[in-house]
Amino acid sequence: MNADSVVRSRGGRALSAAEGRALAEQLMQSRRPRPEAPAAVRPEAAAAAASDHIPPRTEAPEPVRRSRVRPAPSADPRWRWISTRETHRGRVRIDVDEVQLPTGERTTFEVDRSVPFTVATLVQQGSDLLLARQYRYPVDRWILDLPGGGGEFGEVPEQAARRELEEELGVIATTLIPLHTYFANPGRSVWATHLFFAPGVREGRALVDPSERVQPVRMPLAELDRLLVEGEVTDPALLIARTMAAAKGLLPPVGA
Amino acid sequence: MNADSVVRSRGGRALSAAEGRALAEQLMQSRRPRPEAPAAVRPEAAAAAASDHIPPRTEAPEPVRRSRVRPAPSADPRWRWISTRETHRGRVRIDVDEVQLPTGERTTFEVDRSVPFTVATLVQQGSDLLLARQYRYPVDRWILDLPGGGGEFGEVPEQAARRELEEELGVIATTLIPLHTYFANPGRSVWATHLFFAPGVREGRALVDPSERVQPVRMPLAELDRLLVEGEVTDPALLIARTMAAAKGLLPPVGA
Repeated sequence: MNADSVVRSRGGRALSAAEGRALAEQLMQSRRPRPEAPAAVRPEAAAAAASDHIPPRTEAPEPVRRSRVRPAPSADPRWRWISTRETHRGRVRIDVDEVQLPTGERTTFEVDRSVPFTVATLVQQGSDLLLARQYRYPVDRWILDLPGGGGEFGEVPEQAARRELEEELGVIATTLIPLHTYFANPGRSVWATHLFFAPGVREGRALVDPSERVQPVRMPLAELDRLLVEGEVTDPALLIARTMAAAKGLLPPVGA
Repeated sequence: MNADSVVRSRGGRALSAAEGRALAEQLMQSRRPRPEAPAAVRPEAAAAAASDHIPPRTEAPEPVRRSRVRPAPSADPRWRWISTRETHRGRVRIDVDEVQLPTGERTTFEVDRSVPFTVATLVQQGSDLLLARQYRYPVDRWILDLPGGGGEFGEVPEQAARRELEEELGVIATTLIPLHTYFANPGRSVWATHLFFAPGVREGRALVDPSERVQPVRMPLAELDRLLVEGEVTDPALLIARTMAAAKGLLPPVGA
């Protein structure tokens, strides 16, 4: 059994009674700090941590632990990292980590460590939004999304957001407001996506894009919201940025 | 040069003048239909298409093509699929596709075909929401999210959503309303995520989960929104489901 099979067999069916007891014992103990992987083994994680790309590992927000459904355990069990073995190295990078489950059992879990982080920026231009429209081969269609992409080692998220904004739309943000940080695929990928809001932009270098891979699209907010309500907005970064801009009072609410 | 490097070198820097001319010529021609990959080569894609999991490939919504920034080309160039080679087969599945770019050039692109689709359900229970809180190893923390997970071959999204809801929270949805379909990672992964809204649930089979991997969390909507505004909600499915429930009038707006 590996940890992936645990994930797919919830309800404890994959755990024996002895494993359950071992877990109960562990829950009685105070939480042990999770040892950091050595930098030599997980260079991206170390680089990301060093340049403060990944939000700090915090406790769960208090209200979640005050669940009325079930009292939370005194310590939330985590898996303990033991080792990492590279299994795929292309643009996509897949590691197999050996881990120790809260039961004490050792097993393996596949982790996607393709990029240190990703960024995306929601740009306001006058009373309109400046979005991107781009071809996405895996889904074989042109979709509406935000300028952005993968961060590079040595960059901080704001630098990456500015670089992608100029590369993709040919504009330079005058101000870049941090909007939100979320996990694109927290069950499989290590990286966080950093969203920014640009309340204005100025012209950057002229774009010559014979591939037409990314097209700038300027539209009124009401038009984006109409597309959203109709289910036509399919990019997570764009959907989440729209929500968080409303949550922070930068744009009016969706559905109001 | 492969297509991934095109993605990282926008502005046409990766394309020669000759390639640009080839593209211009292509843009003058009417769009050629993209041939479907043979089922033997891409079994998941074929299975997904057969059971109608993936939303139909539609043209971009009309307002996007009426961009005021730049007139859209008469035909949106797509890449033509040539062949698929498996390069990683575990829980994560990575293919290298050979493709033909709009310039006519042949190159390769890595595609994640790990699951046919994913599902997640936002549950309303009286005046509260019934959410999940679960440990996510790649980001080494417990996060607030929605019951859900990967679909299985032969399932339709609603079946998968019901199965995951009972497996993870021990509840059965009386009604399941389709909320939205988005692409979790459209630049790399083929699968869509199907969101549902359950306006009520009844008790399913009792959960015995000694691993404590998924905890049910019941909280008032106002509490979720407070966490959201404070930046504590980091799961894309939960963020997007909250927005779409507002867009469809099922919940009040965020930020109102």
